[in-house]
Amino acid sequence: MKKIILKSRPSGEVNAGVFQFCDEEVPALQKNQVLLQTRYLSVDPYMRNRMNNAESYIAPFMVDEVISGGGIGEVLESRHKDLSKGDLVSGTLPWQEMAVLGGDQVTKIPEHHHEMPTRYLGVLGLTGLTAYFGMLDIGRPKAGETVVISAAAGAVGSVAGQIAALKGCRVIGICGSEEKAMYLRGELKFYATINYKQFPNIRKELRKICPEKVDIYFDNVGGDISDAVFYQLNNFSRVVICGQIALYNLNRLSMGPRLFPQFLIHRTKLQGFIVHDFAARFAQAQQDLAVWLADGKINDRETIIDGFDNLPGAFLKLFSGDKIGKLLVRV
Amino acid sequence: MKKIILKSRPSGEVNAGVFQFCDEEVPALQKNQVLLQTRYLSVDPYMRNRMNNAESYIAPFMVDEVISGGGIGEVLESRHKDLSKGDLVSGTLPWQEMAVLGGDQVTKIPEHHHEMPTRYLGVLGLTGLTAYFGMLDIGRPKAGETVVISAAAGAVGSVAGQIAALKGCRVIGICGSEEKAMYLRGELKFYATINYKQFPNIRKELRKICPEKVDIYFDNVGGDISDAVFYQLNNFSRVVICGQIALYNLNRLSMGPRLFPQFLIHRTKLQGFIVHDFAARFAQAQQDLAVWLADGKINDRETIIDGFDNLPGAFLKLFSGDKIGKLLVRV
Repeated sequence: MKKIILKSRPSGEVNAGVFQFCDEEVPALQKNQVLLQTRYLSVDPYMRNRMNNAESYIAPFMVDEVISGGGIGEVLESRHKDLSKGDLVSGTLPWQEMAVLGGDQVTKIPEHHHEMPTRYLGVLGLTGLTAYFGMLDIGRPKAGETVVISAAAGAVGSVAGQIAALKGCRVIGICGSEEKAMYLRGELKFYATINYKQFPNIRKELRKICPEKVDIYFDNVGGDISDAVFYQLNNFSRVVICGQIALYNLNRLSMGPRLFPQFLIHRTKLQGFIVHDFAARFAQAQQDLAVWLADGKINDRETIIDGFDNLPGAFLKLFSGDKIGKLLVRV
Repeated sequence: MKKIILKSRPSGEVNAGVFQFCDEEVPALQKNQVLLQTRYLSVDPYMRNRMNNAESYIAPFMVDEVISGGGIGEVLESRHKDLSKGDLVSGTLPWQEMAVLGGDQVTKIPEHHHEMPTRYLGVLGLTGLTAYFGMLDIGRPKAGETVVISAAAGAVGSVAGQIAALKGCRVIGICGSEEKAMYLRGELKFYATINYKQFPNIRKELRKICPEKVDIYFDNVGGDISDAVFYQLNNFSRVVICGQIALYNLNRLSMGPRLFPQFLIHRTKLQGFIVHDFAARFAQAQQDLAVWLADGKINDRETIIDGFDNLPGAFLKLFSGDKIGKLLVRV
């Protein structure tokens, strides 16, 4: 079987050269383990940071070792009591065509969800859970408030925005194409959108769209876009620091205006968070999200790329903005 | 009587030229008003922002109108039922030798505090209350945590640090002179200090003093000092954005590194706050502070400058760092 290892740590923008395909023997199955056929692999921005050799909340990928991330597999063979051939499971999977994992390291996907198992990498997976806890626990939306989401057509942003709308907020999405803007306003019922490529003066657009200012800013990107939103924050506003993708590929520290006096004057609360801190509440959150999906209160879209060999290219797409919703590779 | 008006708005660093002394008639006393002899006037960093014509939580000073700030007056004449000649009161006073104010606009200082009435501009006034709510409500110190305070020998910082110490924290003060450092470690029992003029690499000093990192950063200054502390933040750290004096005199926006990825990784909460939002709890907080003072758990120091004519010079001292503790002018 094939696997993909991290050949070298990227410096600045990632290119395909940091990935290397290798062949690997399928190891023998030990007690409590399962052999999985990899079905889907998820590519996510946080994985860029794991390519650096830097302290973080999650260990860095090691050079010459296999990359791993969210994935869905089908059980081919099981020596674990709760799993049997044909089961679908989600979890952290190596970037391999097949994998041997401890049965306790993966989560069984209920049979009634077998038709759309990829939702366990999207709305019902870490993506949706990130949106859920970031918006509800950090942002704490109140009906009538104005919420701005950056990378709003992305996997997390699109769910976060819909959750805020569910709570009675007016949701404004910042995105990078007309197609995304139409998707957000049409299918996802966002109140308004700003295509920053067409309207780079985001601050001016926000002044027009919401002169009453921004109560919650759910930030997936950082950099100039976030600075523009910071100028429009309301008193007692909350900033959910969820992602900073604009900064991840930079070689040197990004410089920007020090807006702390703004945060002071407006009594803004900014908070970084990691979804794993909420693990004890995942089951309840997944149940809420599943109900909202079933009731049509939340819509989702996936961009699925076919073929294990296309994993590196899919990963690079995260940074080019060239996709809507959750980005997956079907193996 | 003399008064001081704002002659023009400062651009950048304030100089004495923005203040103008004028003569004023003492107006006749109306019903419910009191005539005060101004005894003490407080100079505070937030007043710098009121000199700008900018949106804030408090209205800007108007050009050609009298400046006002915290002060203590003695009642010379009263037409208010609760106040009589000889009473001492605190409140927002105009920068005048005498003032006619509504009796409800000032707070009577209890007789048993007449010996140290200036504490109503310091530990028992907005200064102490700012330290109290900023540290306890925003910082939320837990025993054993490491707390860093910038402008630690200042009016707010010195109280905030002692409150954290009271709660069982190890408190590190950043200050700008050996005299201040010795005061903090000696009289105020801070765990450690960093004199940033002697040791400009604050990040390195923090790594030495507290390799286990910083749980709470109570920020009075902003700028480079704060960036250095931000690099040393612990997981689940809190940043109390109390003041940003390093930025107040700047003509243009200060630029600094965008450290939001650090805040994300460490799940840091940064929060700006304004003491007036806690007005409903002032009485209880003053009681706590008075008990801590009486028990010797909190020490305070005042730098008192004599003479109404020295008010402008006293205000400028706020920015030169040339004082310890609360800075007051005795009129």
